[in-house]
Amino acid sequence: MKHQQADAPETEIQDGRQSKGDRTRQALVETTARLLQEHGFAATGLNQIIRESGQPRGSLYFHFPGGKEELAAAAVTAGAAQVEAILQKGLDGAESPEAVLIQTSALFAEELISSNFSKGCPVSTVALEATKATPLLRRACADAYEAWLTLITGTFARLGLSQERAPRLARLTLSTIEGALLLAKATQDITPLNDVAADLSPLLKV
Amino acid sequence: MKHQQADAPETEIQDGRQSKGDRTRQALVETTARLLQEHGFAATGLNQIIRESGQPRGSLYFHFPGGKEELAAAAVTAGAAQVEAILQKGLDGAESPEAVLIQTSALFAEELISSNFSKGCPVSTVALEATKATPLLRRACADAYEAWLTLITGTFARLGLSQERAPRLARLTLSTIEGALLLAKATQDITPLNDVAADLSPLLKV
Repeated sequence: MKHQQADAPETEIQDGRQSKGDRTRQALVETTARLLQEHGFAATGLNQIIRESGQPRGSLYFHFPGGKEELAAAAVTAGAAQVEAILQKGLDGAESPEAVLIQTSALFAEELISSNFSKGCPVSTVALEATKATPLLRRACADAYEAWLTLITGTFARLGLSQERAPRLARLTLSTIEGALLLAKATQDITPLNDVAADLSPLLKV
Repeated sequence: MKHQQADAPETEIQDGRQSKGDRTRQALVETTARLLQEHGFAATGLNQIIRESGQPRGSLYFHFPGGKEELAAAAVTAGAAQVEAILQKGLDGAESPEAVLIQTSALFAEELISSNFSKGCPVSTVALEATKATPLLRRACADAYEAWLTLITGTFARLGLSQERAPRLARLTLSTIEGALLLAKATQDITPLNDVAADLSPLLKV
């Protein structure tokens, strides 16, 4: 159970075979993911997770014996997998590197706007807080970025960017979108994210 | 005292006229700035600030009647002003927009490497945590980014970028550097920051 894939519970819902334990685990992960995205790791308390998820304290320690850090790492992994799934769907149909830029920046912009500038990237707030003292969390954040980079790199390569340029431009694209999201959230102005696609697209000519 | 400029204590040190109250305030702000950059706002406690600054609790509330948020806002403002001063010095001598990119990304890379990937931008961790519930802090972060953008925009304009391109490319430059810093910190690999200058420079031709 502990090393279950983050997307397994959802698959099981679709099959109508999700157990009570899976639902409990899922409720804990989803509540934590939401709290992390809004408040970060340090500000999210176990008592708050228990209260808002409606799950008993014993279940939390049964599913996450490593406590808050293990639960947070699972939540980051689950949130990142959701972003990856939505991104994958969009990028599968992309017809140019510019379309990749537009879709990726729009995905993050939507989250920021729909949450009235309270939510941004499900990884970055936590990534900046993660330290040597929280290695599980640090690993989960690094893995999330790596997964997105792999997806964008693969799409760029499919669309004709060379094997040398694709990974490097994928990293530039993700860096710029994450940074624009940060500036947009801090200044409560979506313009930085809206402009990314137009600004970077000259670099992505095939 | 409460509305004193963040850089005033330093000026007063240079004049040899810094009062005991100024030294107390400065110790509180510097300790808070360091703790915020390493751990973020929520994880930094007033008791820790008092302990590590060596200042009495009463002094903290005397200088910062608004408590932790007011102190954190002052620390963000002071940290951002330090970055701005270093950046200003470098950019005054820059001879091309590309040199601006190189110097700005190198400044943030240095901080990340010298702290063994524990410190990055003195604003961004806090900026992602700041919400409607912490308006003073949010304002301090937004003001910090605006000040850096103004500086970079002015330098780009001096170096020949048009009045239309200068602010937009300044925002792209800062977004990309902040995002690369985030990825570098999360993956503990400085490459994203090291590559920013080479990757973006084709966009900055005068």
